[in-house]
Amino acid sequence: MKFIEKLDQAARRNKSRLCVGLDIDLSKLPRKFLDLEDPVFSFNRQIIENTSDLVCAFKPNIAFYEALGIYGLQSLIKTIEFINEESQVPVILDAKRGDVGHTAAAYAKAAFEVYKADAVTVNPYLGHDSLEPFLNYRDKGVFVLCLTSNVGFRDFQTAGKREPLYISVARHVKEWNHFGNCGLVVGATSAEELKDIHKIVGDMPILIPGVGAQGGDLKHSVKYGGKRAIINASRSIIYARDPRAEAEKLRAEINAAGSAQ
Amino acid sequence: MKFIEKLDQAARRNKSRLCVGLDIDLSKLPRKFLDLEDPVFSFNRQIIENTSDLVCAFKPNIAFYEALGIYGLQSLIKTIEFINEESQVPVILDAKRGDVGHTAAAYAKAAFEVYKADAVTVNPYLGHDSLEPFLNYRDKGVFVLCLTSNVGFRDFQTAGKREPLYISVARHVKEWNHFGNCGLVVGATSAEELKDIHKIVGDMPILIPGVGAQGGDLKHSVKYGGKRAIINASRSIIYARDPRAEAEKLRAEINAAGSAQ
Repeated sequence: MKFIEKLDQAARRNKSRLCVGLDIDLSKLPRKFLDLEDPVFSFNRQIIENTSDLVCAFKPNIAFYEALGIYGLQSLIKTIEFINEESQVPVILDAKRGDVGHTAAAYAKAAFEVYKADAVTVNPYLGHDSLEPFLNYRDKGVFVLCLTSNVGFRDFQTAGKREPLYISVARHVKEWNHFGNCGLVVGATSAEELKDIHKIVGDMPILIPGVGAQGGDLKHSVKYGGKRAIINASRSIIYARDPRAEAEKLRAEINAAGSAQ
Repeated sequence: MKFIEKLDQAARRNKSRLCVGLDIDLSKLPRKFLDLEDPVFSFNRQIIENTSDLVCAFKPNIAFYEALGIYGLQSLIKTIEFINEESQVPVILDAKRGDVGHTAAAYAKAAFEVYKADAVTVNPYLGHDSLEPFLNYRDKGVFVLCLTSNVGFRDFQTAGKREPLYISVARHVKEWNHFGNCGLVVGATSAEELKDIHKIVGDMPILIPGVGAQGGDLKHSVKYGGKRAIINASRSIIYARDPRAEAEKLRAEINAAGSAQ
């Protein structure tokens, strides 16, 4: 099944545009998990079991697993396997990869064949041929960084006299979307810019991080993100006292913002 | 020891600006290695043993190891351990990472503490706070992608009306170089642009890929790259019939181009 269909089906089935980010942090894991054989996987499993009927996607960020060494990456593989076996929710591997052609092909192989993700985030800096090996996996999703939610986004992403770089990225990605498998990453902190980007790319999936800990605007993100907006929250849900309750609450807020349009 | 000192010492000791890229490709490995217990590490070990007195750095690209799964990453760790134990040659981990602050910190930890590289390549798209966690490892080197040697570099890197994006990246990196641990990546395919970049950043190390398989201009790269130019060749050396002879030849060409200035 194509990624976009899997995404749409999960969104419909679970009445949800919420994506839960599985950003593991050993220092924040409740103590009961630390005594188990595989704390990282055990923690993720209970998040997945408690939220897989409330979300349209899961998004593990590979950086946090890589920082734990080989063990962390083994837990990541087990986590994605578990999601694939126990739910029909797609997995977006947040990896922000970007390299020249033959190296990009190796990264694409890792994301889709080693980690077995349904979609991956990539960095546009190196241009089209660096994204092509990802795009050639026609059934997989490819989310290109467009406008990010961190402090430093103004250093380069908004530069450009004729048009800002992030607009140029959105235009190019729309052009490169031959197989209908492209998406964009746009931070929730830039509501007006999201509106402009959505106008360019139409109903392409837009992954929107930054509504939780980073203080982005939920209402505007839902309003301007289009019908395939994917609202991501990571730490605010998974490290909450009751992750399920927190996910339910955020899903309800997203849906309320959506029907208020 | 600071990365830059380790780099300078290796360059002086081995009279070399050559960096050998350890880009593993199972399909290109000579058959004799495939029967060994760990083909990837065994192959790398003989490259390292045969060239560590001819180079100023080794540069494994993590993508090729990641594509082989957990086994590949274990071989990468063993490879870097071997270089650290058996030579005084610095290791530049080619990873092109780039993510928001706390995620960048996890990537930096992976590069420097899990893989134990001396330096890493990073992507500037997300701006300063995405690079800061890397730069805060003051003894480690951080090579920021500036102008790449692939076909797609014109999609974004040369855009910009007042000045091209890659010039803006060079200027910013010069500013961010508080601990003297920054470097740039500039493809050998852009000799004139390299001249302009070198003028901005002075004697900052510039990692220059693309002279081998990608057909970049060696003479101009050496001439314009400055005294800390690092000329990288990967496949043209490691898959040569006689890797040592090939490395010696390229080192001689680099040195001839250098003394012809």
